[in-house]
Amino acid sequence: MTTITQQQWIYRRQPSGQITAGHYELLAQQLDTTLGDAEVLIASRWFSVDPYMRIGQSSKPTYDAEAHPLNTVQQGAVVAQVLASNAAGFAIGDWVQSYTGWQTHARVHTSGLKRIDPTLAPVTTALGVLGMPGRTAWFGLTESGKPHAGEVVVVSGAAGAVGSLVVQFAKRHGARVLGIAGGPAKCDWLRDTLGADWAIDYKAFADADALGAEIKRLTGGVDVYFDNVGGMVTDAVIPLINRRARIVICGQISQYSGGLETPELGPRLLHHLLYQRATIQGMLARDYLHRMDELVRIVAPWVRAGEIVFEETVIDGFAQLPSALNSLFTGEHRGKLLVKA
Amino acid sequence: MTTITQQQWIYRRQPSGQITAGHYELLAQQLDTTLGDAEVLIASRWFSVDPYMRIGQSSKPTYDAEAHPLNTVQQGAVVAQVLASNAAGFAIGDWVQSYTGWQTHARVHTSGLKRIDPTLAPVTTALGVLGMPGRTAWFGLTESGKPHAGEVVVVSGAAGAVGSLVVQFAKRHGARVLGIAGGPAKCDWLRDTLGADWAIDYKAFADADALGAEIKRLTGGVDVYFDNVGGMVTDAVIPLINRRARIVICGQISQYSGGLETPELGPRLLHHLLYQRATIQGMLARDYLHRMDELVRIVAPWVRAGEIVFEETVIDGFAQLPSALNSLFTGEHRGKLLVKA
Repeated sequence: MTTITQQQWIYRRQPSGQITAGHYELLAQQLDTTLGDAEVLIASRWFSVDPYMRIGQSSKPTYDAEAHPLNTVQQGAVVAQVLASNAAGFAIGDWVQSYTGWQTHARVHTSGLKRIDPTLAPVTTALGVLGMPGRTAWFGLTESGKPHAGEVVVVSGAAGAVGSLVVQFAKRHGARVLGIAGGPAKCDWLRDTLGADWAIDYKAFADADALGAEIKRLTGGVDVYFDNVGGMVTDAVIPLINRRARIVICGQISQYSGGLETPELGPRLLHHLLYQRATIQGMLARDYLHRMDELVRIVAPWVRAGEIVFEETVIDGFAQLPSALNSLFTGEHRGKLLVKA
Repeated sequence: MTTITQQQWIYRRQPSGQITAGHYELLAQQLDTTLGDAEVLIASRWFSVDPYMRIGQSSKPTYDAEAHPLNTVQQGAVVAQVLASNAAGFAIGDWVQSYTGWQTHARVHTSGLKRIDPTLAPVTTALGVLGMPGRTAWFGLTESGKPHAGEVVVVSGAAGAVGSLVVQFAKRHGARVLGIAGGPAKCDWLRDTLGADWAIDYKAFADADALGAEIKRLTGGVDVYFDNVGGMVTDAVIPLINRRARIVICGQISQYSGGLETPELGPRLLHHLLYQRATIQGMLARDYLHRMDELVRIVAPWVRAGEIVFEETVIDGFAQLPSALNSLFTGEHRGKLLVKA
C-alpha cells in the first residue's frame, strides 16, 4: 500500500463565542493513495475561509437542519491540483475545485470535483469573484436587490469578499453606492479603488442613531440595502429606506459569534417596511449554482479586462486555518480571505 | 344663512401611550349649509375606527411625512347620507363614503365622495370587507403572501377587521390556516365560525419560545405569515418559517401605543430570512385603490352569498369615538370596529 502524509483540521468542540485553538485539532496520518474507479488524489493549494462556516456551527437549525458534525474535518471549498488520477479526463497537475475542507490531501470521486480553467482567470477566483462570493454578490444584487441606475445602494461589510463585489456590481448598474466598513483604511479603499461614491467607517459612530444621521446626510435615503452584517449597522439603515426599497439579507456576521444561539436584542424595525412597502429577502449562493454560466459570461470578461478589483488577503500555512476563520470576524482582512497550503 | 349644528372631535394633543379623553376635544358649532357648485351636505352615519390612526399620530415620519396635524378634525373614513345636494347625480338620501373624519356633518365637493351601492351589500361593508380592510386583506394576501393550496398560513391579529378576512381568504386558497388572537372566545370564533384549522390564544403563553413551540406543534412550519401585530407574536413565528416563506407586514399594532416613537427591543431574527431565503414585504391598502374593481368582482358575490363572515363590533354614539379608538388596542372587539352616529 502506498500512502501519503495527510494533515487534517478536525472540528472538535462547538464554539460559543470566538474560535480558539481548542475548538479544532490538527491531525497527521497516512492516507492510502490507492485509487478506485474514477477517483483522483488531490493536493489542496488554496483554502477558502468563509463566514458561513460559523453558521454551520450553530446548534439551532439554520439552512442545514443539522450543525456541522463534531469530530469530522472542517468542511469548506478548496482549490486543488491533481496528484494522481484513475479517472478519464483528469491529468496530473489539473486544477480542480472540491468541497473537501481543511485537509492537505484527499481521494475524491470526480463527481465531487469541478474543473477550473486556469486560462479563464487566476485559479483562486474560483473561491472568489467567479465562485461562491461572486455568485452571492451577483445574484443577490440582481435578483433580490434589483438596482436601477440612479438609485442609492448601501452595502454593509463592503470591504469583504461579497461586499467589495457588490459595491462594484452596483456601480455597473449605474447606482450611487455607499459602502460601510470598519476603519478609515477600508473606507479609503472603497472610495479610491472600488469606486464607491461614499464610504462610512461605522466604528467612528457611537450608536445607530449617529450612524444613521450620517447615512442620511450622504445619501438622502436608501433604495437597496445589501446587508452582510446585521446588528447596529442594519439598525441605522432600515429607518432610512425609501419607498419600495429592497433589503437583501446576505449575511449577519455581527451575530455569528454567539448571537445565533441567543440572539442579541435590537430595536423593532418592521414598521418601517410597512410605511415604505419595502421588501426584505434572504438569499443563499447555493440557489444560483445552476446559473454559474450567466455569472461567468458576464463577469469573467470584466475580470480578464482588469475592470473588477478582486482583492485577496492571503494567510500562509495550513496550520493557520482556525485563526484565519476567527480573523474573518475581527475585520483584519480585505476582500476574499484565503489560506495558502 | 341656514345652519345646522355640527359636532366635531378635534385632535388636540399627541398621545405618548394610550388614548385618553385629554387628547381630543368635542366641539359643537353651527355649520353654514349654503352649498357651492357640485357640493353636497352629508350626515355621517358610520365612523370607521382603524389602527392606522395611531400611526398618523407618530411624530416620526411614517407613510406620511407629516403627522396628523394637531387642532384639526380627526381624519377617518365615514359612511354618510346626503342631506342636501347642489350636485348632479347626488340626491337626498344617497349613501356615500367620504374621508371627512370625526364630524357629524360636512359640506363636501363631490370629488371627495365615493358612491355606495346599498343593493350590493350592507353600506357598512364600504368600511370593512368591501373597503380598506378588505382591500388590505385581499391584496396583502394574494400579492405579497401568495398562498398556495396546502401551505400553512399564520395570521396574527386574526380576529380583527383585516385578520378575520385573511383567515377566510386563505382558506379559499386551500391553505391550512392558523389564527392567533387574544382570549379563548376569539379562538373559538376563529375555528367554529371562520373555519380556521387552528387557533392559538397568545395570552396563554408566557413568552415567544412557549408560543413558538405550540405553533410548531400544530403547523410544523410556516409558509405565509400575515402579520398585523408584531412584537412577541412575530418573535415566535419568524424562527418557524419554511423555505421561501413570505411574511406580510400589514400592521404592527403591538407597537402603536408608544413603540413607534421609541421602539421596544426584540430578538434579532433576520438571520432566519437568510436560512430560508424568505421574504418580508410591507404593504399598504392605498397602493391597491385602483384595483377595487377586482376585489368587488371576486369578493362581493361571496359577501352576497353569505359565504364570508364580516363581523362588526358597533359602538353607539359619536361621543364614544376617542374611547373606541383606544379599545382597538385593548382587544375588546371582534372583526370591524364601527361607531354609529
